[in-house]
Amino acid sequence: MNYALVSRSLGHILLLLAGAMLFSLPWAHPALGWRGHLDFRPTDFEWAGFRGLLASSLVSIVVGSTLTILGRGASGQKLFRKEAMATVGLSWILATLLGALPYVLSNTKLADGTPMTLIDACFEAQSGFSTTGATVLGDLNDPELVPHCILFWRSSTHFLGGLGIVVLLVAILGQGAGGKAMMRAEITGPNKDSAFSRMQKTASVFATIYVLLNVVLAILYGLLGMSPFDAICHAFGTMATGGFSTYNASLGHFQSPAIEYLTIVFMVAAGTNFGLLLAVASGQWRRLVEDVEWKVYVGIIASVTCFIVGFGLYSENFDSLASACRNGLFQVVSVITTTGYGTDDFDQWNNFGRGVLFVLMFVGGCAGSTGGGMKVIRHVLFAKILRLELELSYRPKVVRPLKMGSTIMDDAEFRKHILVYFGMIGAIFAYGWLFLITVEPDAQWLPATQAASSENLLDHKLLDCASAIAATLHNIGPGLGVVGPTANYANFAPWSKLLFVFLMMLGRLEIFSVLVLFVPAFWRKI
Amino acid sequence: MNYALVSRSLGHILLLLAGAMLFSLPWAHPALGWRGHLDFRPTDFEWAGFRGLLASSLVSIVVGSTLTILGRGASGQKLFRKEAMATVGLSWILATLLGALPYVLSNTKLADGTPMTLIDACFEAQSGFSTTGATVLGDLNDPELVPHCILFWRSSTHFLGGLGIVVLLVAILGQGAGGKAMMRAEITGPNKDSAFSRMQKTASVFATIYVLLNVVLAILYGLLGMSPFDAICHAFGTMATGGFSTYNASLGHFQSPAIEYLTIVFMVAAGTNFGLLLAVASGQWRRLVEDVEWKVYVGIIASVTCFIVGFGLYSENFDSLASACRNGLFQVVSVITTTGYGTDDFDQWNNFGRGVLFVLMFVGGCAGSTGGGMKVIRHVLFAKILRLELELSYRPKVVRPLKMGSTIMDDAEFRKHILVYFGMIGAIFAYGWLFLITVEPDAQWLPATQAASSENLLDHKLLDCASAIAATLHNIGPGLGVVGPTANYANFAPWSKLLFVFLMMLGRLEIFSVLVLFVPAFWRKI
Repeated sequence: MNYALVSRSLGHILLLLAGAMLFSLPWAHPALGWRGHLDFRPTDFEWAGFRGLLASSLVSIVVGSTLTILGRGASGQKLFRKEAMATVGLSWILATLLGALPYVLSNTKLADGTPMTLIDACFEAQSGFSTTGATVLGDLNDPELVPHCILFWRSSTHFLGGLGIVVLLVAILGQGAGGKAMMRAEITGPNKDSAFSRMQKTASVFATIYVLLNVVLAILYGLLGMSPFDAICHAFGTMATGGFSTYNASLGHFQSPAIEYLTIVFMVAAGTNFGLLLAVASGQWRRLVEDVEWKVYVGIIASVTCFIVGFGLYSENFDSLASACRNGLFQVVSVITTTGYGTDDFDQWNNFGRGVLFVLMFVGGCAGSTGGGMKVIRHVLFAKILRLELELSYRPKVVRPLKMGSTIMDDAEFRKHILVYFGMIGAIFAYGWLFLITVEPDAQWLPATQAASSENLLDHKLLDCASAIAATLHNIGPGLGVVGPTANYANFAPWSKLLFVFLMMLGRLEIFSVLVLFVPAFWRKI
Repeated sequence: MNYALVSRSLGHILLLLAGAMLFSLPWAHPALGWRGHLDFRPTDFEWAGFRGLLASSLVSIVVGSTLTILGRGASGQKLFRKEAMATVGLSWILATLLGALPYVLSNTKLADGTPMTLIDACFEAQSGFSTTGATVLGDLNDPELVPHCILFWRSSTHFLGGLGIVVLLVAILGQGAGGKAMMRAEITGPNKDSAFSRMQKTASVFATIYVLLNVVLAILYGLLGMSPFDAICHAFGTMATGGFSTYNASLGHFQSPAIEYLTIVFMVAAGTNFGLLLAVASGQWRRLVEDVEWKVYVGIIASVTCFIVGFGLYSENFDSLASACRNGLFQVVSVITTTGYGTDDFDQWNNFGRGVLFVLMFVGGCAGSTGGGMKVIRHVLFAKILRLELELSYRPKVVRPLKMGSTIMDDAEFRKHILVYFGMIGAIFAYGWLFLITVEPDAQWLPATQAASSENLLDHKLLDCASAIAATLHNIGPGLGVVGPTANYANFAPWSKLLFVFLMMLGRLEIFSVLVLFVPAFWRKI
């Protein structure tokens, strides 16, 4: 392990983080476009947020500079696989800790008026960086509970997380034959380019696309009537497939079909392979039709929406066909892209709708996008592998390649990798669920009062916990029951919140980069 | 595909089935030891059962003889892999259809007095053969609803299913390097024995152990005060890890700790590799301690019981420590061995207990036993494979063998096979659940009356359905909620019952032997 190189890389990332904190500072001033407030002087509470953010950014600058200086003498320019994994895992942990500081130092409060604990703050920061969008903040509308500059910082963590993902996944997942096949990041260059410089090029192109889409979306939101503050925050939340909003009612606050349809389009784009977006931007529209993963992704969205609209109208979940189509499509796209915005309380839908959304949580967006989850391509390959294995069970000698469209992607290692990934997700889901139902007290499911009318929801604990695990592991945010679209994660016990923090990180970094940090042999030299 | 050979094998199996039906006939007469009835003349209803069984056995004899005659000219003595798979899958389907006849022809009735439909009967037969123990019969105590000879036939299906499993799994799973490692069926013989004759030897030894244990257990039950009828039926239910009882309260009916502890011991034995039982019977006790799978199996039972007793006493699920230990241990063993007997309504336990039992459903007994589920050894190997793969993620070049105790069982195909099995189970579970929540109407979760006191359980549908899928796919029987230990499967829609029939068969035959039947290429010659 080349520690100096890792230290330098960490330092650079933390300095970027500090920069984002500084960029959130001005939003303490209402002149920059809060949501309709006419008083042009920030309140004392807002100033407290400002001071908290400033202090946090100074801490980040100190830590980032120290790490950069420590890594000054790093030899070699290239991050090897091990160093890359260590950098990704450690930077995510450090960013979460530093990103939690603003919440703690700014006196931000939960819905019941109690200040956030460090664990609450870590949860919120991890939820932001992992673009999950799960929150412990129950009331965003009250300007005496959450300062505006902190709300802006909260949405900025989505932007940073999304940026980290599009850049890092190219660097890590793009290695190896299987990774290349999955990413399809074909930035062509002169053949004499090294793999490393091609990788750098791809990463910078992806980052550019990502930033540009954020800018375009923010402008469009502004044109549709959002204030600059709301427009930028929601653009961050959409393009990172995060889901943090600045209102309690999430995107439903605006009551605007135009905003909702615009968001649907950009969520779908955010869940699409950025290599594919680049191809389309350069006029190669046919690539969309040729891409198996994208066809399946759009196919799932379309077919699941039809089912949900059909069953939903039948059991009267929706008022009209128009609202059924809009809300159904919105929630399906929101869940499959792992964004987690809400316009309708899907936890009130019929069991078919709730069950299907639960399963969709395990699907996720396309590889090479900001979408989380297991990724559509893994499911496509998984299905193909199982079909081939079925044939092998009665014809053990037959050899048939694994194909995607017309590309042959056979490689025994690659097949195994897909199966191992599914196995890991299954194991983590099962153990996470067991851990959660063991450590989480029953309190939040018990009736709040002794009155006969208040319902005992204890029997919902098992399903609610399962949905909370899925919603954090796959970086969606809202789940069912106590973590439904109108609820939040504030009432969980500290141990459960730490579990969620861990799961969000595991899911976002595709498991391995996090788990290896706990393997002692990983840290040994050579 | 050698159709003649398959036909002859099917014929033999069906003739065995007819024999078991004939053996159930005498139990229509109360002199053979019903449960305390003193009237020595069978009722008219009992005679109807007798006639139904007789007619069914005649049909089975005709079908079995026809198939045997059709396969008369079969060339070759050996069943090859393809033929073996076809025989197993088809015999299971034919046995289910023929085994369902007695229920339909005998006027057996559900708890509400309606006669069983053909689908109900197929469900009950499949549940018996697959040693699941799920039932649609809500009231076994009323002698005007279910004739005694039919009850005996119902338990006999467990015996036949268990026998089929110990014999067939040796024949099918025992093939190939991985299969041999999993089965550890080391019947040694002269080296010049062919693999086929060794396999035949193993199968007959396993069958002998199985029959002997049934006889011993029935005698012990008799000594503890059961009538011959009850003793034999419950021995069948225990040794096959089935779970059909002859009483509504299952084994809890007897209110006898001695019977319960005896059942625990024999359930544990039934879930143990029969090769290991043989070794122990011949005095090699040390094999128990050396066997990794068995150690894990007993370890899971012990640790889970401790947790359930501890948490259960804390939240007052149990009256006393003694009853906590007995009921806790009984239910844990009953679920992990996939038997499904009940002495306590575990659906009333706290959520920790319910959740843990739900996860245990996915574990199952040891390979080479009558226990269903995924088998302990697959979980052990799965965990080892994931750990090895974690290392491969940062050291792609390292080569490390997969070990069980001191045995090296490396074989890339074998690793992949374990992963594929977990993948298949996950996919079947997810799709089965989606199918069930789609086709199953909400009726059985809605309040029976309009009274405010009757609870609306609709929110339980998702979890109840998930547990029903797990309980049938892994051949346990009872699940949570509407399929809990005190409930039954009668209220499900016909389509849902057909799904359960399919799942029980899939789980019992370890997936592949069933799925290949639906692959057209499987049936082509060569």
